[in-house]
Amino acid sequence: MRHLKLFIACSLDGFIARPNGDVDWLFTDADYGYTEFMSGIDTTIMGNATYRTALKFEDIPFRDKRNIIFTRQPDRESTRFAEYVSGDIIDYTRRLKEEPGAGIWLVGGADIIRQLYRARLIDDYIIAFHPIILGEGIPLFSGPGIQENLRLEELRRYDSGLVQMVHSRRPDEPAG
Amino acid sequence: MRHLKLFIACSLDGFIARPNGDVDWLFTDADYGYTEFMSGIDTTIMGNATYRTALKFEDIPFRDKRNIIFTRQPDRESTRFAEYVSGDIIDYTRRLKEEPGAGIWLVGGADIIRQLYRARLIDDYIIAFHPIILGEGIPLFSGPGIQENLRLEELRRYDSGLVQMVHSRRPDEPAG
Repeated sequence: MRHLKLFIACSLDGFIARPNGDVDWLFTDADYGYTEFMSGIDTTIMGNATYRTALKFEDIPFRDKRNIIFTRQPDRESTRFAEYVSGDIIDYTRRLKEEPGAGIWLVGGADIIRQLYRARLIDDYIIAFHPIILGEGIPLFSGPGIQENLRLEELRRYDSGLVQMVHSRRPDEPAG
Repeated sequence: MRHLKLFIACSLDGFIARPNGDVDWLFTDADYGYTEFMSGIDTTIMGNATYRTALKFEDIPFRDKRNIIFTRQPDRESTRFAEYVSGDIIDYTRRLKEEPGAGIWLVGGADIIRQLYRARLIDDYIIAFHPIILGEGIPLFSGPGIQENLRLEELRRYDSGLVQMVHSRRPDEPAG
């Protein structure tokens, strides 16, 4: 089955953005494994707010991938680069994972991450901890959630102080 | 000046204990740097609830250290191994750091950690991330807090999957 992969950055205290959504504290001086990660991905899924944010940085985000955008507006028309989907996110993602294909990147945002993590659908957690305590912001994990037993697969340290941990779900846990 | 050091374990989602205080998920199969850490410490500070928990594991916790226990009961009598202190935690700790001596271990709990972090009095953050998402519990950092810019000093990976990060406050930040 295809792996659903959370690839995300957070502060040491677990925030993915400042309260207003700002990510000015993220390191942007290097690739931090992004290119390698993207080579194993053929599909992205994200919420519409996250997609709107991506559009601020790129005219066509994730141009060479199939991009699935969850929206609460069922009549939103898909484009060549953005496939709008409404309805049950968990059910949709479960079926998507059963289709043939490469890895699926769960881009965000926090609400969709929480739903899919709670359904035990995230196979790999690739989290880049930045050397900063923000003190407030949008949490990566906002409880109450469920327990997931993980296995540390990889650990990467960068000169900037960024620490990337790669965890996978332990197979003894029931799948989503 | 003496360094105030937070040496603590947490889950990947930043909890130091389950909602009821349980830490059954902590690895106890190895030392995980504890002995080395303690060799640089001559004083511990903690809240009374944390000290009561330590008493469950050892008759005399931290026997060869000066142990300062913050309490809201000003008449609590100190013992040979436990020095009870009441009053302003921040002010007390600031003065303690100015006294001659070795490192000071900030043991916990969460409320005292938050107060001292917000006063920018914690010099070193030594956090052992366990490969587990708990989903709920007592958070290491419970906002709203302040921004602290840190420097990654050390990173240790253990076979069990535990990842210990050592961060220090960046000197360009105003001190507590």
